[in-house]
Amino acid sequence: MGDDCAATLIGAGKVLLSSTDTLAEDVHFSLTYSPPTLIGRKLVNISVSDISGMGGVPLFLLLALTMPGTIDDSFVKELYTGVNSACREHNIVLIGGNISSTPGENPMVLTSTILGEAAPDDIIYRSGASAGDIIYVTGTLGDSALGLKGLEIDGPTALTRSPFREAVSRHLDPSPRLNIAKTIARNNLATSMMDVSDGIASDLPGLAKESNLSAVVDLNKLPHSKEMLLYMSKEADGLEMMLAGGEDYELLFTAKPENKNEIQRLAKEEDLRVTAIGQMEETTEDSVTVRFVDNNGDEVDIKKKGFDHYL
Amino acid sequence: MGDDCAATLIGAGKVLLSSTDTLAEDVHFSLTYSPPTLIGRKLVNISVSDISGMGGVPLFLLLALTMPGTIDDSFVKELYTGVNSACREHNIVLIGGNISSTPGENPMVLTSTILGEAAPDDIIYRSGASAGDIIYVTGTLGDSALGLKGLEIDGPTALTRSPFREAVSRHLDPSPRLNIAKTIARNNLATSMMDVSDGIASDLPGLAKESNLSAVVDLNKLPHSKEMLLYMSKEADGLEMMLAGGEDYELLFTAKPENKNEIQRLAKEEDLRVTAIGQMEETTEDSVTVRFVDNNGDEVDIKKKGFDHYL
Repeated sequence: MGDDCAATLIGAGKVLLSSTDTLAEDVHFSLTYSPPTLIGRKLVNISVSDISGMGGVPLFLLLALTMPGTIDDSFVKELYTGVNSACREHNIVLIGGNISSTPGENPMVLTSTILGEAAPDDIIYRSGASAGDIIYVTGTLGDSALGLKGLEIDGPTALTRSPFREAVSRHLDPSPRLNIAKTIARNNLATSMMDVSDGIASDLPGLAKESNLSAVVDLNKLPHSKEMLLYMSKEADGLEMMLAGGEDYELLFTAKPENKNEIQRLAKEEDLRVTAIGQMEETTEDSVTVRFVDNNGDEVDIKKKGFDHYL
Repeated sequence: MGDDCAATLIGAGKVLLSSTDTLAEDVHFSLTYSPPTLIGRKLVNISVSDISGMGGVPLFLLLALTMPGTIDDSFVKELYTGVNSACREHNIVLIGGNISSTPGENPMVLTSTILGEAAPDDIIYRSGASAGDIIYVTGTLGDSALGLKGLEIDGPTALTRSPFREAVSRHLDPSPRLNIAKTIARNNLATSMMDVSDGIASDLPGLAKESNLSAVVDLNKLPHSKEMLLYMSKEADGLEMMLAGGEDYELLFTAKPENKNEIQRLAKEEDLRVTAIGQMEETTEDSVTVRFVDNNGDEVDIKKKGFDHYL
């Protein structure tokens, strides 16, 4: 930490993976309901999720924190407690940091850059899918957006008292799917993969585009939590949250139909739901299309492509 | 660029160097006098300077730009023109980027993370100095602070019309000393090195501390530009700028006395002034001390350790 740069090694013959991500106050988090330790954990984990999305192993983290000069020392200390706890969980070494102050009461801007590695053959790109591949998603969708709604309604107490408290916890303290991503990568089970950060309504078209394919998704197969089911029994926008809420940090991947059993066996081993939600298709027109269909196979027009403030 | 991470290779057996740095609007630059292309160039070059400070080779850059939603497309385009021009100059590939928007009129926060490489034996740390080593600095000191003052007095026209226009240019568009740093590293000419980003009044104590030594600097040997000489003939704070102005992005390094001629030969070859300004000494007390002395060898009390807004 004393030098101009961190000097580190990556494994011989390994590919270096790197990604940079920002959490901006009042855009990605609010000090009124995010405990500083959880902001610190999330700052690390959104970056870990990018490494997961390619089947890699996270190694090193660099932080660039821009904060108003008026910020409490205790805030910074708690933020680092969260950063360190997430780093410890994933065996990541914090190798660099830069703190700058903004004048006045400007919002914080927290940027993390993660470095990881993978064997060249283990990396899973978005571009590797073929027509006929099954589309899978891990865990459940829309919980982060539901949790945000819980926080907006109930404030900070939502984490313990909201009917959607598991969703609140997923919003404030998301878990990247690192273990299953590594296992999928090492066993060559996926043809393409990415993390779900904006919601599948915008993430899947991204994957389809890189693979130069179209896709069809069965809306009835989208995996939802019990809390989302409860919410959907009362409110109309649950489906939008599942498609476009974003920040779920689940994995979206495609696999050959013959790997179906192996994927389900793996899911059971990891105690994580893995759901087939659709299929990749040849692109019949010039442009990539992702269709969403209902029980009868009829196309449903999805207008909302992601909450604007998440893009 | 289409995937969650950039996947890149570094040379076999090389050490990975990484560093992250932030330019915050109204702290490190002002839109009233910084052309966007030069902000883009500076964002790259402050990171290149960190790689220079260790004798490495820059390879890849990741940017995280946080800007108000109201920002002009043309601003972003010009910023990237500057980023690309600096990347081209140093053979750097821009491998990742993240743009997030801040609400309202909040100031921009621009973070760059650079990745580079070096052979393990070529890396120059701050910790390698020995007592008796000569302290060198490249180029001239204080020009960036002088340029900032020129901008504060004359506004944007200072770049072409100020009596300190070369200093203004050094402030807005600093040049990292990459070439000479690489040559110094490959020829094992320095025992320790760093870039001068905060001013030697705070950077040299940092180097001395890492080397567990003290140091003495001859104030009369500090290299100044013609413009600084002109300024000092009229104003009293030139020496403070040279010591604590910061953002000069010169190299501060130590070398064995027997390498003196080789260093001067190299400086001539690179057409860059390299000046011996002092010497490393054993630490006689428990703590590192950096003394500044005048012509007569008498200690001068340096109170100002760096402009607060640069720290």
